[in-house]
Parts: sequence; structure tokens; C-alpha cells
Amino acid sequence: MAVLTILPVEGIPEARPGDDVAALVGDALAAGPGLVDGDVVVVTHKVISKAEGQIVELTDDGPDSHRFLVEQESVRIIRRRGPLVIAQTRHGFICANAGVDRSNAGPARAILLPEDPDRSANRIRTRLAHRFGATIAVVVTDTFGRVWRRGLVDVAIGVAGIAPIDDLRGSTDTYGKVLEVSEVATVDEIAAAADLVMGKATGVPAAVVRGLEWKASSDGIDVLIRPPSEDLFR
Amino acid sequence: MAVLTILPVEGIPEARPGDDVAALVGDALAAGPGLVDGDVVVVTHKVISKAEGQIVELTDDGPDSHRFLVEQESVRIIRRRGPLVIAQTRHGFICANAGVDRSNAGPARAILLPEDPDRSANRIRTRLAHRFGATIAVVVTDTFGRVWRRGLVDVAIGVAGIAPIDDLRGSTDTYGKVLEVSEVATVDEIAAAADLVMGKATGVPAAVVRGLEWKASSDGIDVLIRPPSEDLFR
Repeated sequence: MAVLTILPVEGIPEARPGDDVAALVGDALAAGPGLVDGDVVVVTHKVISKAEGQIVELTDDGPDSHRFLVEQESVRIIRRRGPLVIAQTRHGFICANAGVDRSNAGPARAILLPEDPDRSANRIRTRLAHRFGATIAVVVTDTFGRVWRRGLVDVAIGVAGIAPIDDLRGSTDTYGKVLEVSEVATVDEIAAAADLVMGKATGVPAAVVRGLEWKASSDGIDVLIRPPSEDLFR
Repeated sequence: MAVLTILPVEGIPEARPGDDVAALVGDALAAGPGLVDGDVVVVTHKVISKAEGQIVELTDDGPDSHRFLVEQESVRIIRRRGPLVIAQTRHGFICANAGVDRSNAGPARAILLPEDPDRSANRIRTRLAHRFGATIAVVVTDTFGRVWRRGLVDVAIGVAGIAPIDDLRGSTDTYGKVLEVSEVATVDEIAAAADLVMGKATGVPAAVVRGLEWKASSDGIDVLIRPPSEDLFR
């Protein structure tokens, strides 16, 4: 089993609406670790959302205009307590505040999720693969809370080129017994691993996971969303 | 920001009741990447459970004796549908089948969680720190499903020496705005990252995360368990 390295991609400037994320990330990669076959490029959604203009100027910095925006971004409210809203976004993600985020946004501003994170991931992948001549995958991340466990972790909200889930069902354990439930959410583990070098406050919005064996796929992130029929919690 | 490396610890033999996990892992480390200051040693709970004798011989390999065992290991059933049980363990974890696992256990056997994963982690940490003369942390992991998202990810169920949560509340974003919600579940991200080199079927039950800056702490894993009062889902 190979050693895995996780490389922060430093020197990516603050993105503005209209910016070309693949160029911003690509320039930083060219000045840093480059890209080689098999690399997975992890990009936090914020740099993408900003470049794609998914920014809302709030009428004020108080809770009301924020709350209004959260309702607007939700297709369904799952739970509500005080200022906390857990909602389903139109992508199908269930998360706090429907992904509306005011940190790292600037004063009286909020950042929304990308309109189609898979599409964003695919664009970045195509451009970077061409520029570096390498077979790569791209994972777009956001930071989610969890039920039952305190603390946030980064998860995948968009993918390009990599199977979101590694389906080991039917393979055998070390005793030759067939594994019963072994769908590993590989891209979520990649997102979490990348966050270890990105952090929340450091302004490093991308990382490269190098040395991982992953399964190529054209699947989108929707395969990671649990269908309501098998979901015990909504 | 430093580069992170994640090193699989290969060559750990199958553990048997009474085995010394710190010795098994330590021997494999000595033959492999060793340990240096700042390393986080990640160990899947199964090797610990087996060494600690947390193995149950089932009367048969069918669902009934398994179901009985799950009930026995549960302090509370959270949800139930068909053969699927989501239960709270006496440690406070909420997971499928109360952590009872039949894969990688051998025929007609099940493996339970360690009685006290923090205590197991602390023992391993003390022994490895002494053997290698290094300041290290230990994280014990299990594989959990998630609400709303398909696929499994590894999470921390025991810790020694490292703060389970990195509390960034009060620190500022790149605009100088105070971060509102920024408790990062660092040890869960470490667990997920380590799983990328361990896999479910490969028989590599430990990994070393090298190059990470982490906060030393004597906290146990209980700080990661969301108190019922702030939990919207039970």
C-alpha cells in the first residue's frame, strides 16, 4: 500500500466574480506541487462560489436578512431550533443554513453553494488535466455538521472523474467472508483528509491528494445522497 | 503549511485475545516508518477489540443471534427498520448495530467495541511514546454510516493526547470577521484520512499521520458526543 501525501496549494488569490478558478488553482499548482497522474485536486467550494458570483449582498449584517436568504436557498426545512436551521438544498444536500455562509465572505455578505458543483468540478478537471497533461480527479468540498457528533468535517459536494463511493460489497474480508455493508464514501474521506492541510481560517482553499488509488467514474455527487426511501431520519 | 503524509503500518499480525497491541503495532512501526515527534498513530478498533478479547462466539451465523447481541450492546435503540438497528452504545456512540461487527471476525463470531477506547488509546500511546522516544497521539477508529449521506466513513471512537475538537471560535477569517461556528472535529478528519490507506478489506489496521499540527489535550472522546440537549435528532 502506497504512502499518501496531502499537499496544500498555497498562493491562490482571493477569487472575484468572473475569475477563472482553474487558472487560479492551476497557477498556484504550477508554482507549487504541480500535478501528476492519479492526483486528486480538492477545492473548497468558496473559491468556486466567489468566482461564479454566488455572492449575496445582505441589506444588513443582522440575523433577519440571513434567515431570509436561508429560506430562499432551501427546498425543505428539516429541523429548526432558534437560529439553527437544517435544510435541504436544491442539490439534495442536507446541512445547516442550506449552505449559506457568512464567514470568509466579507462584511454584510453571504456566499451560496455553487449552482452545480459537479459542473464546476468537471470544468476545473478538464482544464487542469489539459494544462498538466495528467489524469486527475477533482473534489469540491464544504464544511458540514453531523447528527450525534459535535464538530464539523469537510465533505464532498461535487466530484469529477472519481467514483464517490467505493463499493466493496461482494469482496471478502481477511477470512474470506463476503463483506455485507461496505460502501465507503471515499470522496468524503478525501475531503476530510484535505481539510487537515487547509483549515478554516488559513486561506488555503485547495489541496492535492497524491498516491491514492481511486476508481475512475463519471458519476456525480448525487450517488452520495441517501434516497428518502432508505433514510430513517426525515 | 506543511505537507501531510499518511503512512500505512503494514505487517501487523492478526491479533488474538491477550495480545499486546502496543507491541504488535510497535514492532510493525519499527520495521516500517518508525515514529517521530508529532505523529498521530491511528489504529482501527478491531485489532484492539480482538486483543482485549471483545469477541463473541455466536451460537449460529444467522441473524437471530446477531440481533440478540446487538440488543445486549445497546443502551438505547434510536431507530429500527427491518434488520437495520441504529443504537446508542454504552460509550455514547450512536451507530448501526451498536458497533457489533461480523466482518473480519471469522465464522460465527462477532467483534464488539473495546470496553473503553480512550483507555486502550492511552495505553498504546504511553507504550509507543516510550519505545520510540517521541511525543505522539493515538486515535482509535471505527467505520460508521451517516444520516442523509450514503457510504461509510471512519471516525474516531477513542483518543489519547490530542484534542478531539479544534475550537476555532473567536478566531477570525481572512476578512478579520470572527468565525461563528468553527469547531472542527479534527480526530474524525484524521480517522477518515487514515482510512484512505487502510481500506476495509486489506488487513492494514493502523496508519501514521505525519506532519499535522495538533493541539495536545487529555480530553476523551466524550467531548465529541453531542449532548442530547443540543441534538435535534433523538
